[in-house]
Amino acid sequence: MELKPWKVLRSEIVYASPPYLRVQSHTIELPDGRIAEPYFRIDLRAFTVIAALTAEHEIIVGRQYRHGIERITLLLPGGLLEEGEDALEAAKRELLEETGYVADRWESLGRFVPNSNYRCGEVHLFLARDARKIAAADDDDLEETELLRLPLAELLQELLKGNVVSLSSAAAISLAAARLQS
Amino acid sequence: MELKPWKVLRSEIVYASPPYLRVQSHTIELPDGRIAEPYFRIDLRAFTVIAALTAEHEIIVGRQYRHGIERITLLLPGGLLEEGEDALEAAKRELLEETGYVADRWESLGRFVPNSNYRCGEVHLFLARDARKIAAADDDDLEETELLRLPLAELLQELLKGNVVSLSSAAAISLAAARLQS
Repeated sequence: MELKPWKVLRSEIVYASPPYLRVQSHTIELPDGRIAEPYFRIDLRAFTVIAALTAEHEIIVGRQYRHGIERITLLLPGGLLEEGEDALEAAKRELLEETGYVADRWESLGRFVPNSNYRCGEVHLFLARDARKIAAADDDDLEETELLRLPLAELLQELLKGNVVSLSSAAAISLAAARLQS
Repeated sequence: MELKPWKVLRSEIVYASPPYLRVQSHTIELPDGRIAEPYFRIDLRAFTVIAALTAEHEIIVGRQYRHGIERITLLLPGGLLEEGEDALEAAKRELLEETGYVADRWESLGRFVPNSNYRCGEVHLFLARDARKIAAADDDDLEETELLRLPLAELLQELLKGNVVSLSSAAAISLAAARLQS
């Protein structure tokens, strides 16, 4: 089947709070000629999430209260890309700042869009191997964090039990498990 | 470590387009007394994503152009919950509408928040087993869809190659693989 992209006939910014959030309203022409409006595009800053494994195959995970989730949850390290920053560099910076760890072997687990209708930013997932602690965590995030090291299989069980509520952390943990088995 | 929830001191709706989108601006008091504002809450409708496997261990997947992604991608079936609708019922309805399949064995793969800062709705992931076709797809979504059946291991390879860009589809595929192996 030949699938065609949609045409954006008109685009208007209906709310903006730079540099964090911008909401656009699009008028769309579908391939069959129908018009869809308003169709929103929610622009948020790109972020990284890192599945970092030590040489002992433990994964570095934080316990945090997160406001978007409204509960305490297990989350992988990660954060927003700075303006113009490369995703891998951002991931290395966030891992060091949030946990004090560096890693020698990095690979991408993919770039994903959180909402396939409205986008809501994009997330770059990484697998970092042979992670080792070289410094204290030096984190100026708003959240208080308790850092843990768990065997990957144990974190996967916590995830399947509902103790990881962040979709990007869930994807990175299960993709890391799939990559390590393939 | 005792982790405390944040307090919302003030909340204001700064943009709304019912029933699809609402943006709130929160003024937050952190546990250490600092104030954070504006801290956004993006309310979007909850949705479901379904990893549906046939008795032959093939997974039902669509090829679609998605506007939030701006390219053609492989996606699992799913869609928005109707007002007051139970997530499992919504998943069964979407699977039937979008693919013409029903399934006997359903289990939750979890409820996740797409953005742990601003929320951006929530997604309910499901694994459906022994799926079988009982009808033609009867889909009134805006998107044109080409339906495929792929072995789960093959779809996982497509995912690791970057051909699944939706974060919720990626999470459901890799969580289904983890669940089937555990």
